[in-house]
Amino acid sequence: MDRILATYRITASESESKVRAEALAAEQSVEMPVAAIDDPRVLTDVLAQVKAIRPHAGDFEVVLAIATETTGGEASQLANMLFGNCSLQPEVELIDVELPQGYEKTFPGPRFGIDGIRKLAGVTGRALTCTALKPQGTPVEKLAQLARTFALAGIDVIKDDHGIANQSYGPFAERVPAVQKAITAANRETGGRTLYAPTFSGGPRALGEQTRIAKDSGVQMALVAPMLVGLPAFVELQVDLDLPVMAHPAFAGAGRIAPPLLLGKLFRLLGADATIFPNHGGRFSYSKATCLAIADAARRPWLGLRPALPVPAGGMTVERVPEMLAGYGADTMLLIGGGLLSAKGKLLEKSREFVAAVRG
Amino acid sequence: MDRILATYRITASESESKVRAEALAAEQSVEMPVAAIDDPRVLTDVLAQVKAIRPHAGDFEVVLAIATETTGGEASQLANMLFGNCSLQPEVELIDVELPQGYEKTFPGPRFGIDGIRKLAGVTGRALTCTALKPQGTPVEKLAQLARTFALAGIDVIKDDHGIANQSYGPFAERVPAVQKAITAANRETGGRTLYAPTFSGGPRALGEQTRIAKDSGVQMALVAPMLVGLPAFVELQVDLDLPVMAHPAFAGAGRIAPPLLLGKLFRLLGADATIFPNHGGRFSYSKATCLAIADAARRPWLGLRPALPVPAGGMTVERVPEMLAGYGADTMLLIGGGLLSAKGKLLEKSREFVAAVRG
Repeated sequence: MDRILATYRITASESESKVRAEALAAEQSVEMPVAAIDDPRVLTDVLAQVKAIRPHAGDFEVVLAIATETTGGEASQLANMLFGNCSLQPEVELIDVELPQGYEKTFPGPRFGIDGIRKLAGVTGRALTCTALKPQGTPVEKLAQLARTFALAGIDVIKDDHGIANQSYGPFAERVPAVQKAITAANRETGGRTLYAPTFSGGPRALGEQTRIAKDSGVQMALVAPMLVGLPAFVELQVDLDLPVMAHPAFAGAGRIAPPLLLGKLFRLLGADATIFPNHGGRFSYSKATCLAIADAARRPWLGLRPALPVPAGGMTVERVPEMLAGYGADTMLLIGGGLLSAKGKLLEKSREFVAAVRG
Repeated sequence: MDRILATYRITASESESKVRAEALAAEQSVEMPVAAIDDPRVLTDVLAQVKAIRPHAGDFEVVLAIATETTGGEASQLANMLFGNCSLQPEVELIDVELPQGYEKTFPGPRFGIDGIRKLAGVTGRALTCTALKPQGTPVEKLAQLARTFALAGIDVIKDDHGIANQSYGPFAERVPAVQKAITAANRETGGRTLYAPTFSGGPRALGEQTRIAKDSGVQMALVAPMLVGLPAFVELQVDLDLPVMAHPAFAGAGRIAPPLLLGKLFRLLGADATIFPNHGGRFSYSKATCLAIADAARRPWLGLRPALPVPAGGMTVERVPEMLAGYGADTMLLIGGGLLSAKGKLLEKSREFVAAVRG
């Protein structure tokens, strides 16, 4: 029977490792004392198995083999089996997951991937540029103007700030058609193909309504925070949208699930075509190694899944473009938001500078 | 303008506190350099304000006043404003949230609360009893038999194990009608009113289908893990179900959002009628103080919200019933799963012992 291999790091002394590993295997599958289970099928096919215990920097790592059948082929139950109850144990971290060949077909995966985004944006042979409409609270007309300026400068993807949702001062139904219209008009003037990725948020009914509005408005991309809308809602939205989806890491936590696993592998498995993450040296404390590992997890060959576009962000500046390009390579989208907006009256010039720096 | 007061604990030296507090206020609202904002309305009405900075055990706490308007009256955006980006900063924890009077009406809150659950279960003047059908992988007929035994013993609420979802070996559509039927039959024999709370999981479409099946089967309660299905999907499900909902803490993490806030206050705000949490001295490491704080947050008077029933769980035994009753009082539901199932052939007797210990 197929098994998922999940690696956990446990902060406890190695002398406890065997007992702790067995306890974790029970917690993440049958959730009851194993001695009280009579059914041989449950013991062989449902109970997670301890595949390895190995020392790690004074603590230890445990590899569990979790039966794919227990995940019910569905995102919330996959998350439950991987990190449901043990998320409540502060000494346990989820480090990595290996899926058996073919299991990835259970989930949509990136429908467009890096090639699909490149094709839509008309970009080959170089990294892509991205910026954000900010701040929330800005009137819709001004957001549309801002989008026009960015599009005239030739930025490839303009996303909503992730804090722009469906507030009274810029409801999705007013904002999204207006911004898309401004970008479409600018594209017509420049011959460019700037894409708009509005923020999708809320419950299933709101997401359904936003999908309808976005399609009616000719929107070609979407921004969604999977941990805010919920993993299974993210999957369903991605399928319904049938547009490239950029995953935002908001509410994704820090450290308890290794960022390369959550923001790289799992978001990709569930269908992210691009994944935003806080780049090193910005407002967040991820290390360079963590950031490179996220980018690697997003785009390296993995089962039958298309590669997803890594999007380093979080306090980046135009000055850092050469270093980021050197670090991440061309299959990357550089996201600079506040770093452009700080130019205020010289926004168009600053945006052009960003575009030129990436085009080289 | 109404503001939500959110308290964060920041692991950093106090000399940095003012700069860090201002940075957090920007991160959790406008997400851009404040100096680059021209619009006076954004500065006064949208930007979060630093209300207090106070030392805390070598680090410091910051109280931000977050504009309610920025939350868009919706669960995913509320979570985003409270802990979206700063969830990615490992040095930041979200400790508490105070809502302005009336804001709670934005969300459903518990539709039944403690009184509603008591009424349905026909229980007054004592704590309630709860157990779980386990393990996943058990054939449906055997789960139904197990449920019959628990109901004959007079347990008030029988929930699915949170790992029982919609797997091929016990699909919701087969399992839920069969288990409900067994419990209804046992109730008829005993004159009791045992309730069944099946696990709802999956994406919006799956949840809609499960709601329909549950209603058709006469199910009177539900078990949902808000962090697995997603907070906004939880809200919508709770409204559609119109049954008492027990929140399960799976995937809710440990420590970065204070458990009394997340499992107590926020789950209650979003509509949990009962909230399960890992009791101290079991398989999880929550302290007694944390557990009592969760129970307090769930049921103390708070704005216009009904109290929710605290459900301590996680490796509890019948032997601990007197101590738990002394600690939590009567407005509590004690959940013992594996501790009953370990009795194997003597399950009915052990379950009766549990019921008798709580009834006193």
